[in-house]
Amino acid sequence: MRFGLSLPMQHPMGEPMAQRFAELLEVVRLARQAGFHHLSASQHYLAAPFQYLQPLPVLARVAAEAEGMTLGTGILLLALQHPVHVAESLATLDVICGGRLVCGVGLGYREVEFEAFGVPRGQRLSRFLEALEVLKRLWTEEAVTFEGRHFRLREVSLSMRPLQRPRPPIVVAASNDRMVQRVARLGDAWTIAGHATFATLERQVALYREALAAAGKPFPPPYFSLSKELFIARDMETARRQAWPYLAAKYQAYAQWGQDTVLPAGESFRQPIEQLQEDRFIVGDAAYCREQIARHRERLGIQQLNLRLHWPGLPHRQVLEAIALLGEQVLPYFAQD
Amino acid sequence: MRFGLSLPMQHPMGEPMAQRFAELLEVVRLARQAGFHHLSASQHYLAAPFQYLQPLPVLARVAAEAEGMTLGTGILLLALQHPVHVAESLATLDVICGGRLVCGVGLGYREVEFEAFGVPRGQRLSRFLEALEVLKRLWTEEAVTFEGRHFRLREVSLSMRPLQRPRPPIVVAASNDRMVQRVARLGDAWTIAGHATFATLERQVALYREALAAAGKPFPPPYFSLSKELFIARDMETARRQAWPYLAAKYQAYAQWGQDTVLPAGESFRQPIEQLQEDRFIVGDAAYCREQIARHRERLGIQQLNLRLHWPGLPHRQVLEAIALLGEQVLPYFAQD
Repeated sequence: MRFGLSLPMQHPMGEPMAQRFAELLEVVRLARQAGFHHLSASQHYLAAPFQYLQPLPVLARVAAEAEGMTLGTGILLLALQHPVHVAESLATLDVICGGRLVCGVGLGYREVEFEAFGVPRGQRLSRFLEALEVLKRLWTEEAVTFEGRHFRLREVSLSMRPLQRPRPPIVVAASNDRMVQRVARLGDAWTIAGHATFATLERQVALYREALAAAGKPFPPPYFSLSKELFIARDMETARRQAWPYLAAKYQAYAQWGQDTVLPAGESFRQPIEQLQEDRFIVGDAAYCREQIARHRERLGIQQLNLRLHWPGLPHRQVLEAIALLGEQVLPYFAQD
Repeated sequence: MRFGLSLPMQHPMGEPMAQRFAELLEVVRLARQAGFHHLSASQHYLAAPFQYLQPLPVLARVAAEAEGMTLGTGILLLALQHPVHVAESLATLDVICGGRLVCGVGLGYREVEFEAFGVPRGQRLSRFLEALEVLKRLWTEEAVTFEGRHFRLREVSLSMRPLQRPRPPIVVAASNDRMVQRVARLGDAWTIAGHATFATLERQVALYREALAAAGKPFPPPYFSLSKELFIARDMETARRQAWPYLAAKYQAYAQWGQDTVLPAGESFRQPIEQLQEDRFIVGDAAYCREQIARHRERLGIQQLNLRLHWPGLPHRQVLEAIALLGEQVLPYFAQD
């Protein structure tokens, strides 16, 4: 199984971003040493109460420190940008990182983003679906003619193409059941955001397997991945004490952003951290982390696990310690898988 | 006077882009050693017959090699993207390069770009002007409400801000007389594309000075800059022999793209290179380059000269030789200015 690390893209407003970015580069170098295979950068606009770096410039800069690693958007808000811009920007990034780009895309859910970009409620999904189709076709066809509701292209031919041929892998995020089923048809793999409890994930993976089978596609696809909030320390108590306050604050912000409204019914973030974390986050010592990771891999069939172990405000030193500990006591355990 | 170098962003289709990008990084390192102060990356979409890298990922990656240098978009096609996306992407880039970003923007002129992005002919200028206003306001105001023809924002507050306060400098491209006059009101400085002959530039700079005076602004503004096609070799003959074929091919493509249609009447690129180059390009030995640069600086009042000495297909070795020669025999001559 491959391990990815979600980069520390978001920080409380008011914090000095030049220093936070220098720390991000330190995280990259340590993650590479620790044996991580992949780095991912997420995307949000207008992300108060956080300063949220934009993923494409970050990934391009990170490429200088990440030799041999794959780089991914996790995820790009495809409905908010024009697919020609996305296609050429990601193609450039694929050149910069030597053909190791994984293109992760998603619909998003935050009202404030759709409103600022002028995308009305009834057009969000169709805009996303059209943008995804146009992106794929621009990367793989000689010239694209497309008559959509949102995008109209006549004989548009991309001269700036990705290094990877026919194109970089495309993984698609999905939170609700219908979108999970749709992803089986749309992309190369589902990338699970991992906000939900294990029970929900297991149920949805079954739906995904069925939908793949119906589409005549094998399970699991190579880029089938799960993002997971995970934190590790020398013992369970320390891990919880260090992680929980920042996880709790982040999920309060998610609740305000409406993230849980796109999850299946019953999944709410408006709970105390002691309950919220149960079977949703992996926070503990090395033995506990290994056991939980093995359980997710075996029961869900994921090919890659993207760890999220930074939340806004968590001290940099603790992030570094957690990555080092993963490199010593967790990643080697899965090296032969 | 400050010297900038325009990065080799465009290459003939079919050339191996990973290698071309490795060469771009070599150009960056040599330019820094040679004493250049600034690097700029231009933007075009769908740029056949060239593969044209996108500027934001390139500048972000280049930041790793360009310590102490300023980085600029030269120019960004502002009418083709949403200003919230531009504001946060450039803010991220400003963080990445340590607050040394210069934001260059322009309207563009290529039908194929506007058409693919669905911007009708009658909306191009107003879309550009609105995007520029929104960008400036997002960077400097707490919350922006804007009711435009193309963009509508209600209390939109940027949490991801540039490192530079109040904001990065904004330079604006202009080719025709009306736009030159408009730029005096719009941005922090005019950035001259430099495709026109010296006589046209001199006439337009006079217009610009008048418009600045009318707006109560001093001349020259600190970021007043000129891009110029320049090539240098040991002697005049070698310089011409090496540069002219690639310059001629590039300006044939410009003519097909319609670049000269936005220049003042009488400026046409459809001429043999011997005539086209006259008083338009600077191609020669060190003495000739010094003399021409001094003339442009004195007669036009520019504060920065951005050299364009790569055109698609020009061998990498010749680019490196030209940069080294500039570092030895030209840039030191202007070091005290």
